[in-house]
Amino acid sequence: MTKRLLAEFLGTFWLVFGGCGSAVLAAAFPELGIGFSGVALAFGLTVLTMAYAVGGISGGHFNPAVSVGLFTAGRLPAGDLIPYVVAQVVGAIVASAVLYLIVTGKADFTSIGGFATNGYGDASPGKYSLTSALLIEVVLTFMFLMIILGSTSGRVPAGFAPIAIGLALTLIHLVSIPVTNTSVNPARSTGPALFVGGVALQQLWLFWVAPIIGAAIAGVAHKSLFGDE
Amino acid sequence: MTKRLLAEFLGTFWLVFGGCGSAVLAAAFPELGIGFSGVALAFGLTVLTMAYAVGGISGGHFNPAVSVGLFTAGRLPAGDLIPYVVAQVVGAIVASAVLYLIVTGKADFTSIGGFATNGYGDASPGKYSLTSALLIEVVLTFMFLMIILGSTSGRVPAGFAPIAIGLALTLIHLVSIPVTNTSVNPARSTGPALFVGGVALQQLWLFWVAPIIGAAIAGVAHKSLFGDE
Amino acid sequence: MTKRLLAEFLGTFWLVFGGCGSAVLAAAFPELGIGFSGVALAFGLTVLTMAYAVGGISGGHFNPAVSVGLFTAGRLPAGDLIPYVVAQVVGAIVASAVLYLIVTGKADFTSIGGFATNGYGDASPGKYSLTSALLIEVVLTFMFLMIILGSTSGRVPAGFAPIAIGLALTLIHLVSIPVTNTSVNPARSTGPALFVGGVALQQLWLFWVAPIIGAAIAGVAHKSLFGDE
Amino acid sequence: MTKRLLAEFLGTFWLVFGGCGSAVLAAAFPELGIGFSGVALAFGLTVLTMAYAVGGISGGHFNPAVSVGLFTAGRLPAGDLIPYVVAQVVGAIVASAVLYLIVTGKADFTSIGGFATNGYGDASPGKYSLTSALLIEVVLTFMFLMIILGSTSGRVPAGFAPIAIGLALTLIHLVSIPVTNTSVNPARSTGPALFVGGVALQQLWLFWVAPIIGAAIAGVAHKSLFGDE
Repeated sequence: MTKRLLAEFLGTFWLVFGGCGSAVLAAAFPELGIGFSGVALAFGLTVLTMAYAVGGISGGHFNPAVSVGLFTAGRLPAGDLIPYVVAQVVGAIVASAVLYLIVTGKADFTSIGGFATNGYGDASPGKYSLTSALLIEVVLTFMFLMIILGSTSGRVPAGFAPIAIGLALTLIHLVSIPVTNTSVNPARSTGPALFVGGVALQQLWLFWVAPIIGAAIAGVAHKSLFGDE
Repeated sequence: MTKRLLAEFLGTFWLVFGGCGSAVLAAAFPELGIGFSGVALAFGLTVLTMAYAVGGISGGHFNPAVSVGLFTAGRLPAGDLIPYVVAQVVGAIVASAVLYLIVTGKADFTSIGGFATNGYGDASPGKYSLTSALLIEVVLTFMFLMIILGSTSGRVPAGFAPIAIGLALTLIHLVSIPVTNTSVNPARSTGPALFVGGVALQQLWLFWVAPIIGAAIAGVAHKSLFGDE
Repeated sequence: MTKRLLAEFLGTFWLVFGGCGSAVLAAAFPELGIGFSGVALAFGLTVLTMAYAVGGISGGHFNPAVSVGLFTAGRLPAGDLIPYVVAQVVGAIVASAVLYLIVTGKADFTSIGGFATNGYGDASPGKYSLTSALLIEVVLTFMFLMIILGSTSGRVPAGFAPIAIGLALTLIHLVSIPVTNTSVNPARSTGPALFVGGVALQQLWLFWVAPIIGAAIAGVAHKSLFGDE
Repeated sequence: MTKRLLAEFLGTFWLVFGGCGSAVLAAAFPELGIGFSGVALAFGLTVLTMAYAVGGISGGHFNPAVSVGLFTAGRLPAGDLIPYVVAQVVGAIVASAVLYLIVTGKADFTSIGGFATNGYGDASPGKYSLTSALLIEVVLTFMFLMIILGSTSGRVPAGFAPIAIGLALTLIHLVSIPVTNTSVNPARSTGPALFVGGVALQQLWLFWVAPIIGAAIAGVAHKSLFGDE
C-alpha cells in the first residue's frame, strides 16, 4: 500500500509541477512563450509519462476525481479511496511549494500572480460565469473518465492506455483553459490555491464538486452502459 | 446495437465538443491562444482518445462519411449505416448545444460568431472558392478513409490504428482549416450550422456531399486496389 | 508490384499534399497560422499515417533517398529502385498539381509565391549559403535513414516504426525549415519546383544530390556498424 | 562495446544537433518561428527517435546523468560508466561543431549568439537565480530518471518506453527553458558551451552537478522504493 501511495504522491507531484510549472514559468514568456497549447501539452505529458512510470504500481490516478470515478465503476476498493486522495493532495501541495521556491528566485520577481489557479467569473481567464465553469468541468471530467475506463478495459491491447489518457488531458486543456484555467482535478486546484489564497481559495469548492460529480456519474454510466470487463 | 449507437453518439459528441470547442473557446484567445495548430491537435485527439475508449464497441467512426466509406469497402452491413449516421448527427447536435450554453456564459458575450461552422467563398476563413472547397474536402476525406482502412487492416499490429487515424485528422486540419474550416465529417458540420443558421446552413450541403463522395470512392478503391483482409 | 508502386504513389502524394499544403495554405495565415511548428508536424504526420496505412504493402518509403538508403543497406532489390523512385516522383507532381488548383481558387489570388519549394542562398528562408544547405541536408538525411533502418530492425517490437520515422521527419523540419525549407526528399522538392520554375528548378539538383548522398552513406554505415538483422 | 559506444555517440549527437539546432536555427525566426514549444518538441523527439533506432544496442542513454542514474539503480556496470560518458560528450561536441558550421553560413551572420547554452542569473533566459536553477535541474532530472527507470521496468509492455522517455524530455523543456534553457544533461550543456566560452563555460559546473545529483538520487530511490525488476 505504501508503494502505491508513493506512486500517487509522485505522479500528482509531477502533474502539478509540470503542468502548473509550464503555465507559470513558460506560457507568457515574451515572443517565445508556449501559450495555452504548450501548457495543454505539458499537463497531458505529465500523466502520459507517469502512467508509464508508475501506473503499473498504483493504477496511475494522480487525481481525486479519477479515484472517485474508478470507485463508482467498481474498480477501486472503498478503503483505498481516502488514502489515495490524501497522497494526491499532498503531492500537489509539495509540487506547488517547490514551484513557489523556483518562481521567487527570479531577478525581477514581484508576485507569484495567478500561479495557475483555477477560477470562474472574474477569476476565469476569459471571464466565464460560474454556470459555464460548472458545466464544462462536469462534462470534461465525465468524458475524461469515460476515456480512462474505456482505454483500460479488456477491449484495448495492453500498453496504449497512457497515450489515450495523457492526450485526453491535453485535449481537455486545449478546450477549457480559457474558461476555468482547467481543473478536472481537485488536487491540482488545491495546491496552487493554498499559495495564492483569496479568491482562489473561495472558489476552490467548485473544483472539488464539479470534477467529482462528473467522474462519479461516468463511473456508474460506463459500468452500466458498456459493462466493465 | 444500442451499445454501439451509444458509443457513436458519445464519440461524435466528443469530436464536436472537443474540436469545435477548442476553436470557439481557445483559438483566438489574446496572446496565448492555441491557433489553428491547437485546434488541429484537438480534433485529432478527440478521435484518438475515443477510438481507444469505445472503438472496440462500435468501430469508432464518429463520422457519417467514415461509415459510408466502411460500407462501400464492405466492412459495415447496410442495415447499420442509417442508425450509425443518426447517432452521430445527434451526438454532434447535443455537443453544439452544450458548447452554446458555455459560450453564452461569458461576461462580455455578444454573439456566438462563426461557432466553428464550415464554409466556402466569403464564408471560407481564407476566402477560397466553392471549387477549392469541394476539391480539398473530397481529396482529404478520400485519404482519411485510405488511412482508416489501411491502418485497421490485418497488416498493422493491433492497437496502433487510433494513433494513425486520430493524427490523420490532425494533419487534415493543419492543411485545410484556412480553406473550409475543415469538415471531412458531415455530422461535425451539421451541429454548429444549426445554431448559426444563415450561410452556414445554406452551404451545409457541400459538407455532406464532398466528404461522402471522397469516402465512398476510397472504400471501393481500397478494396479493389489493396484487398481488404 | 503494381500494388507496391501504387502505395508509394499514394504515400508520396500525401507527403507533398499534406506537408507542402500545410505550408502553402496555413503556415502564414494571419494571427492563427500554424508556423514552422505546424508544418513540421504536418510533414511528420503524412509519413506516420501512410506508413501505418500502406507501409505493410510497399515498405512505406515515399522518398527516393529512403529507397536509395534501403538499397545500399541491402534491404531493397536493385530492380525495385527505379520503379519506386518513378512512382514517388509522379505522386509528388500530382500532389503539387492538386494543391495548385486549390491555391488558385482563393478570392484574392495573385501568385502561388514560393509554393513550399526548397532553396539555398537568396532562396533559403533564412538566407543560408549553399554550403550550409548541402551540409544540413546530408546530415539530416543520414540521420533519417539511421532512424529508419534502426527502428525497422528486429530490435524493435512490431508496430512502433511509423511513430519513430514520422516524428523523425517532424524533428528534421523543426531544425531545418529556416535553412533550406527542408527537403531530405528529392520527390518532395521536385513537385513544387515544376510549378514554380526559375530558381527553384535551378537549385533542384542540390535536393537530389544531398539527400541521396546522406542516405546512401547511412545505408552502408548502418549495415556495417550495427549489422542489419 | 564499440557498437554500444557508437550508438551513444550517435544518439547524443542527434540530441544536441536536433535539440540545440532547432533552438539556434528556428526558435526565433520572424513570424513563423517555433518558439519554446517547438524546441521542447525537438529535444524530446531526438530521444524518442534514437531510442527506437539504437536503444536496443546501448540502452539509449544519450546523457551522462542518465548513465549515472542507471548505475546507481544497479542497471549499468561500473566499468561502462566512463566510456559511455566519454562517447556522449564527444557526440555533443561534434554536433555543436556541425551546427556551428551551418550557422556561420548565413548571409547576415555576425555572431552565434547564445548558441543554446545553459545558464543561470543573468545568463538565464528569464533571469532566474542560481538557487532556482539548481533546484529545478535537480528536480527535473530526478523525475526524468524515475520515468526512465519505471517505463523500462518489467511492468510496462515492450516498445512503449521511448515514447514515455522522449515525451518526458519534451515536458521538461516546456517547463524549464525560461529558467536554465534546460539542461538535465551535462553532455548537451558542454557541447555548445565550448563554442561560446565565457559565462557559458564558467556556469557549466552547475549543469554537471545538478543533473547528476538528481539522477543519482533517483537511481537509489527507484531501486529501494519500487524495486527494480
